[in-house]
Amino acid sequence: MNNQNGGPEIEQLVQLLARLPGLGPRSARRAVLHLIKKKDTLMVPLATALDRAVDTVVTCAQCGNVDTKSPCNICSDTRRIESGLLIVVEDVADLWALERAGANKSLYHVLGGTLSPLDGVGPEDLNINTLVDRVEKGDVREVVLAVNATVDGQTTAHYVTDRLESFEVKITRLAHGVPVGGELDYLDEGTLTQALNARTDF
Amino acid sequence: MNNQNGGPEIEQLVQLLARLPGLGPRSARRAVLHLIKKKDTLMVPLATALDRAVDTVVTCAQCGNVDTKSPCNICSDTRRIESGLLIVVEDVADLWALERAGANKSLYHVLGGTLSPLDGVGPEDLNINTLVDRVEKGDVREVVLAVNATVDGQTTAHYVTDRLESFEVKITRLAHGVPVGGELDYLDEGTLTQALNARTDF
Repeated sequence: MNNQNGGPEIEQLVQLLARLPGLGPRSARRAVLHLIKKKDTLMVPLATALDRAVDTVVTCAQCGNVDTKSPCNICSDTRRIESGLLIVVEDVADLWALERAGANKSLYHVLGGTLSPLDGVGPEDLNINTLVDRVEKGDVREVVLAVNATVDGQTTAHYVTDRLESFEVKITRLAHGVPVGGELDYLDEGTLTQALNARTDF
Repeated sequence: MNNQNGGPEIEQLVQLLARLPGLGPRSARRAVLHLIKKKDTLMVPLATALDRAVDTVVTCAQCGNVDTKSPCNICSDTRRIESGLLIVVEDVADLWALERAGANKSLYHVLGGTLSPLDGVGPEDLNINTLVDRVEKGDVREVVLAVNATVDGQTTAHYVTDRLESFEVKITRLAHGVPVGGELDYLDEGTLTQALNARTDF
């Protein structure tokens, strides 16, 4: 990528943007040109927003969510605390996805990944001890394991279940089944089997 | 898109990033999470780079390129000026693409678009008068019309040619033909006909 003609400032911006997921060198260059064209309406606000985010965004010490305060807004919400429902997710992105679904008003706990012995990720690399501490305090009534339906995700779910065994807390997991709007023809057999086994009254 | 839980600072960042070409709301959210995770190595440098770009990037008053000074580095390059070669492009992106190709050391002129009567884009909306001024000064030996091979591009090329008719300057256009690495089977007939007519000795 040779673009000295645009000046090192522009080149550096391209290279940094190219490191964002979903953007490569080509689309980063297009994005930078777009930014320069819309300097007042997009580039300046984006620079300001980034500066402010750098200054204010912190990771919640309790649940691992990102917010501008710690404990975060979710952890401070009295109604959520009273619900006694704690959803365990792998990543902040999963937390956001569940919040967007808006189906529940619960607390969360972000593990920060999954156990993966092959990649050298052990229990001490994840926020599992803090989860045990939260459950130990006794305010949690039910822990929902909302980890991905992958091998690593399920391994993690089993490990977390073992660690929480000694506490009086209900442990549940997300239902498996046919995605809403999904066509049976395109579904894998594992999902279909689970959906059939977990069939409900119509 | 409901994400108040992350705080308005994060939400605003998502919405601004979602306006970049190639990013939608979903990928913008993923990008913001990535930025937050790599705060020191990516978010802070990006914020700094954007701030600096906001302060320094200007449009070259002569050719329309973006750079940190005006006239830009290309317009100030003595060797390029001496070449007497002026490549007319629609957009800064095209200028960058030609520079990356690195095939030539010439000056450029960015029109800023193409004539498009249907969209209400007339000659006065493009940098055509400044092009005529540059040619009038007499330092330009050859004008290469490197506009896109679209109807609007070709209309613009014809208009520019008409405007430059009275000057003693050679006007050329990019060659049409088979793209390097391209397969004949996938090429449209117009390109094939042009490639055949413009065949060269082997």
